[in-house]
Amino acid sequence: MKKFINAPENMLAESLRGFADTHSGLIVLDEPNRFVRRRDLTTGKVALVSGGGAGHEPLHSGFVGHGMLDAACSGQVFTSPTPDQISAAARCVDTGAGCLFLVKNYAGDIMNFAMAADMAGCASATVIIDDDVATNASGEAVGRRGVAGTLIVERIVGAAAEAGWTLPQLQALGERIGSRVRSMGVALRPCAVPGAGRPTFLLDDDEIEMGVGIHGEVGIRRTRIVTADELVDELLTEIIPDLAPLVGSPLLLLVNGFGGTPAMELYLMANAARSNLAARNLSVARSLVGSYVTSLEMAGCSLTLAALDDDLLGLWDAPVNTPALRWG
Amino acid sequence: MKKFINAPENMLAESLRGFADTHSGLIVLDEPNRFVRRRDLTTGKVALVSGGGAGHEPLHSGFVGHGMLDAACSGQVFTSPTPDQISAAARCVDTGAGCLFLVKNYAGDIMNFAMAADMAGCASATVIIDDDVATNASGEAVGRRGVAGTLIVERIVGAAAEAGWTLPQLQALGERIGSRVRSMGVALRPCAVPGAGRPTFLLDDDEIEMGVGIHGEVGIRRTRIVTADELVDELLTEIIPDLAPLVGSPLLLLVNGFGGTPAMELYLMANAARSNLAARNLSVARSLVGSYVTSLEMAGCSLTLAALDDDLLGLWDAPVNTPALRWG
Repeated sequence: MKKFINAPENMLAESLRGFADTHSGLIVLDEPNRFVRRRDLTTGKVALVSGGGAGHEPLHSGFVGHGMLDAACSGQVFTSPTPDQISAAARCVDTGAGCLFLVKNYAGDIMNFAMAADMAGCASATVIIDDDVATNASGEAVGRRGVAGTLIVERIVGAAAEAGWTLPQLQALGERIGSRVRSMGVALRPCAVPGAGRPTFLLDDDEIEMGVGIHGEVGIRRTRIVTADELVDELLTEIIPDLAPLVGSPLLLLVNGFGGTPAMELYLMANAARSNLAARNLSVARSLVGSYVTSLEMAGCSLTLAALDDDLLGLWDAPVNTPALRWG
Repeated sequence: MKKFINAPENMLAESLRGFADTHSGLIVLDEPNRFVRRRDLTTGKVALVSGGGAGHEPLHSGFVGHGMLDAACSGQVFTSPTPDQISAAARCVDTGAGCLFLVKNYAGDIMNFAMAADMAGCASATVIIDDDVATNASGEAVGRRGVAGTLIVERIVGAAAEAGWTLPQLQALGERIGSRVRSMGVALRPCAVPGAGRPTFLLDDDEIEMGVGIHGEVGIRRTRIVTADELVDELLTEIIPDLAPLVGSPLLLLVNGFGGTPAMELYLMANAARSNLAARNLSVARSLVGSYVTSLEMAGCSLTLAALDDDLLGLWDAPVNTPALRWG
């Protein structure tokens, strides 16, 4: 698969430099430790630190700024950042109130963030994000993967951190949101890891991959492509039972592109999702549509639902000012 | 090429409805006339109206809002909106100060906007945008195509309209910016028009299309893929002579994805472009990186340079609040 690239081993460094130069008003890049941090830190505020493999941009670096993360560490493509990177980021952004790590549920990330927490030498806590219902059957030891719902946890916990919540309060909030967020994705075309020379899986011209992961993990079934309405119904039918949202309670809908799918199709999926939810007597209180948690150039999208309440809605709506998400 | 779609003939209507529901705080959709307009109109402000074929989202509908457009009309995919649509939009958003049409240089758009100007019955003027240097050789009668530079004209003229400039002043400003904006694109993978069943052109696994248009028009040469640095040098070497920017004068750099290229690659291209410009003693004063003027799911990107001055920089920086562009 063709890419804009000079050499696979330099891709991350060059992309991070381009990102940092483009958003230099908001963020600062630590080149040796490959993390991005907020330009302006607030003393006494709990620091939120996230990170993961590259290839999911704008997650996580694009979410650094007021009302969201304080630092984001980037590993190589689809590879966890190292404990050294993460602990350097935590030390850099901790202003005395401690550090909350927001970690997607993958073995490498869990291990490296845990080691980093020990090394950082500041008060810290961790929230694990595991929203992918396609991995419900993967067993207790492994659990569900963390995917696009991560954005929602980072945003809502970020708003609360800005409002002065303490480390234990933020950890409890993160776990509360995490339990109310579920996602599932479908791929129309795979991606290829730079330098690997071949896609992470192969699909025929009329095939799609249901329940795909964001690292090229194959899904739970491969089927012929069907209409957008049918796809949306299939995804929501997997997501909704896990959330059991109450009729009339406010839902947040995230239609997330995987990198190779244009806005025109994502908005069409958003329209299909709203119609489908309305037919189930479920009401969308807020929505977000765009390519926020990507998988390199994979074509496809995920749907995420979050069952909110008035308090969580208020935090979602609070001002946010990051490279990739901005309102208020 | 697989798409999220129900039926080709409904794609535009369903996508527009999804867009309007997602951004209902900012914009209102006129479903029968397929245009999007600002929710809050300002009496006495010149109305800016643009539009074109669908498939380029977020252009133009995503740029409707404070500091940018008042209305955007969408034709079917890669097809001009009709004079009826455009004149309905103009009548809807004109508050007495007249209407400025911002039109990309394509025969169908030029003709339909001219007919709409006659039909609308309000004072109006038109600015034609023609920034694509790949079409420099296309002759005086046809001229250069309008591509990603359109965003820059819409943004800067939009800021001036918000500041109370008159219709003749805005027309002159639009022409002045237009003469200072140049673009060129490269495709790694083509797109397919919904329902057509085949891509707009074919590329081998190692081929790229230099100077490609945003409607699947073939470019000016087909070559083997080269490094990002080499591609950027080739694009800028075509763009810069047309602008003849002065050393030290402020440049705006737009790295625009065509729909199928992820952020990680676009930021890498931005980094390459900054290095290349620095080596030419040209300085980037502002930059924007993202998929703003797309061509369905085409993989590729364009580079745009705008030679600004302090006045134009001030207008660029003024607050803007639209679905796809927001700052200040």
